[in-house]
Amino acid sequence: MTAQTNQRIDGKRLWDSLMSMAEIGATPKGGVRRLTLTEVDRRGRDRFRAECEAAGLAVRVDAIGNIFARRPGRDPNRLPVLFGSHLDSQPSGGKYDGALGVLAGLEVMHTLNDLGIVTEAPLELVNWTDEEGSRFGHSLMGSGVWSGVFALDKAYALTDVEGVTVRTALDGIGYRGGEPAAAFPADAYFELHIEQGPILEREAKQIGIVTGAQAMVWYDAVAIGQDSHAGTTPPSARKDALVCAARIIDLVDRMMRARGEDGRGTVGQLLVSPNSRNVVPGEVRFSVEFRHPSDAEVDRLDAQFPREAGFIARDCGVKLELTQLFKIPAQPFDPGCIQLVREGAAKLGYTAREIVSGAGHDAVYVARHVPTAMIFTPCKDGLSHNEAESIEPEEATAGAQVLFEAVVARASRVLA
Amino acid sequence: MTAQTNQRIDGKRLWDSLMSMAEIGATPKGGVRRLTLTEVDRRGRDRFRAECEAAGLAVRVDAIGNIFARRPGRDPNRLPVLFGSHLDSQPSGGKYDGALGVLAGLEVMHTLNDLGIVTEAPLELVNWTDEEGSRFGHSLMGSGVWSGVFALDKAYALTDVEGVTVRTALDGIGYRGGEPAAAFPADAYFELHIEQGPILEREAKQIGIVTGAQAMVWYDAVAIGQDSHAGTTPPSARKDALVCAARIIDLVDRMMRARGEDGRGTVGQLLVSPNSRNVVPGEVRFSVEFRHPSDAEVDRLDAQFPREAGFIARDCGVKLELTQLFKIPAQPFDPGCIQLVREGAAKLGYTAREIVSGAGHDAVYVARHVPTAMIFTPCKDGLSHNEAESIEPEEATAGAQVLFEAVVARASRVLA
Repeated sequence: MTAQTNQRIDGKRLWDSLMSMAEIGATPKGGVRRLTLTEVDRRGRDRFRAECEAAGLAVRVDAIGNIFARRPGRDPNRLPVLFGSHLDSQPSGGKYDGALGVLAGLEVMHTLNDLGIVTEAPLELVNWTDEEGSRFGHSLMGSGVWSGVFALDKAYALTDVEGVTVRTALDGIGYRGGEPAAAFPADAYFELHIEQGPILEREAKQIGIVTGAQAMVWYDAVAIGQDSHAGTTPPSARKDALVCAARIIDLVDRMMRARGEDGRGTVGQLLVSPNSRNVVPGEVRFSVEFRHPSDAEVDRLDAQFPREAGFIARDCGVKLELTQLFKIPAQPFDPGCIQLVREGAAKLGYTAREIVSGAGHDAVYVARHVPTAMIFTPCKDGLSHNEAESIEPEEATAGAQVLFEAVVARASRVLA
Repeated sequence: MTAQTNQRIDGKRLWDSLMSMAEIGATPKGGVRRLTLTEVDRRGRDRFRAECEAAGLAVRVDAIGNIFARRPGRDPNRLPVLFGSHLDSQPSGGKYDGALGVLAGLEVMHTLNDLGIVTEAPLELVNWTDEEGSRFGHSLMGSGVWSGVFALDKAYALTDVEGVTVRTALDGIGYRGGEPAAAFPADAYFELHIEQGPILEREAKQIGIVTGAQAMVWYDAVAIGQDSHAGTTPPSARKDALVCAARIIDLVDRMMRARGEDGRGTVGQLLVSPNSRNVVPGEVRFSVEFRHPSDAEVDRLDAQFPREAGFIARDCGVKLELTQLFKIPAQPFDPGCIQLVREGAAKLGYTAREIVSGAGHDAVYVARHVPTAMIFTPCKDGLSHNEAESIEPEEATAGAQVLFEAVVARASRVLA
């Protein structure tokens, strides 16, 4: 499929490492359940730490449990080049979401050792705590605290469904570390991740050169009509909250499609009340979200949507309560880091395309402080957050090799 | 508001009787919870039976618990004129749904006694068992068994959520009677009921002359798309089951409105999976129902809907599984009985209009064997199956008076 000249990393070692990590929290259906700060997570972390130490890396843990494994550079005064991802999973997650970035990072370290390469700048491999947010309800927790988006005390106080706090859970598995959980100066951050979408697979690209993360706006909507008997209520007397919601769902889809392939617009959650077969629904609660690479486009969506949804509600005789939950600007990645990913893919002869991340990633927060880029690799059917999540060994190899190229190039560059 | 000449029934006695019955199973919010064949239902039945006996009526109970209270006519060979409704309620029901028809029937008997009128034909006031279907999941049970729509054994074997069978529940309250639960020859059946819809109130009509019951067709629908990440899945790769369902909901509403004020089309129940804010929904299950007074129109709806819904699903890249649950023909009522209701309303000077019943009623089953008509009275905001169900005393009086006129006219008519 491709000329794998210049390949340095050991694809088999990486794959074995992925399969071995996937045994920790393995589910019967071939997925992984490695919820953050659980005993299963501890086993994953312990193995990762042991492997880092065996590779000669110096491991530190910060106050929110982020693990940093450092390989010295030739020049101790240079800022480190960071790379990594997360080892925690969704409750019914897959083997690769997060783990690929961490274990490919470890493979980069092994390869450098094998080849006897000493980079100019130090390297630091990172495992961020609680990327998924499944247990404590707050995704990107470790990178969020590190980058100053969440206060450490606020993160510590979050509880799981059994009332266990993050702080207690960190202590419970021995990963409340002594390092401050705060951004430190770094030269760059690279994160390899599966795409979690179908674009690369559909276009048969091996590498996604991630240029940034989308802007997004999220809403909660409540359509309030009037319950009434489905058999006795004539059309003119209906205030059908579900018909209103349905037309707004169609609006969201049309607004998305009007933006072409970069548009995202989704109603993912919807609850009908009273939800009885022969009652015209009186109330429907639903979520609405839009995403787009351009802040200006999200601003336009945010201006257009409430207005047009309001017209629909009025036509339906239904009251619409629309609450904007948040609006996050786009996070463009660093042009220099993006260029290194592009060059790495080109050097190896991999097919590649630029892509904007639709999902949230630790890299999006890290990018607020550190020049950042991401590398995507395809995943089968675009499926993720699912036990059926699947990638091919050569896809993992390609991603890890591009990570290697970008990291080594960055850490070896001549500073002005 | 109206000239109440010729009024015979005692409106105050009727209202007191309604309020008194409403105390049995009264809820804090002013409604009634008198679930069929419970201890509360027994108290309602016992009071009704006692009042019938006190009024000189001969009470029989059949094997499914239907209660018949007979007043002799002058000619014992004539077939009886039946009238009544049901005393059971929804779990959070109102004071009038069902009770109005039974207690107005009792008021008719009292009035005849007061006036010393002996009709030619015997009269029988009926309380049908389990109209609501809330406890055992099968509405119109007593009239259904009586009319041969449900087998008695099948009805006996139905269980409530605690596993209690209908038979056990009948025995438990002492209402598994000795009479066969089967239709017997009768001259006519009249049922007074609140409209449970907004039409009479909106048009300020005191009486609905019910000409029959709607035809209906019910479906279960499952839209099967593909779960995918809301942030990463571009428009062209989406198989959004909720967008598909939304467009079908809109279709149902448009198909209803294309039939004018007689059309009914409702999606009352809908469940989204996985129902997560940032996941494009992969599966949506929902109910669809259409009703119309004309069988031909329901046939057309039944031909059009699966075809057009299928086109929508195909456009959405979603698989649609559509199952027709049942299709019930319209039940026209008897022209002679309808005419007596019309004449009764006219005689009293009540404002009236013809109306087709949108809800199911015992009368619809009885009509299969016995010439039948119904009388509707308005209810506030068309609200029913709700503790806030409300009517005015003069509305109850008007309905009972028209019932009186129709019953007496029918039972006194000269047979050819």
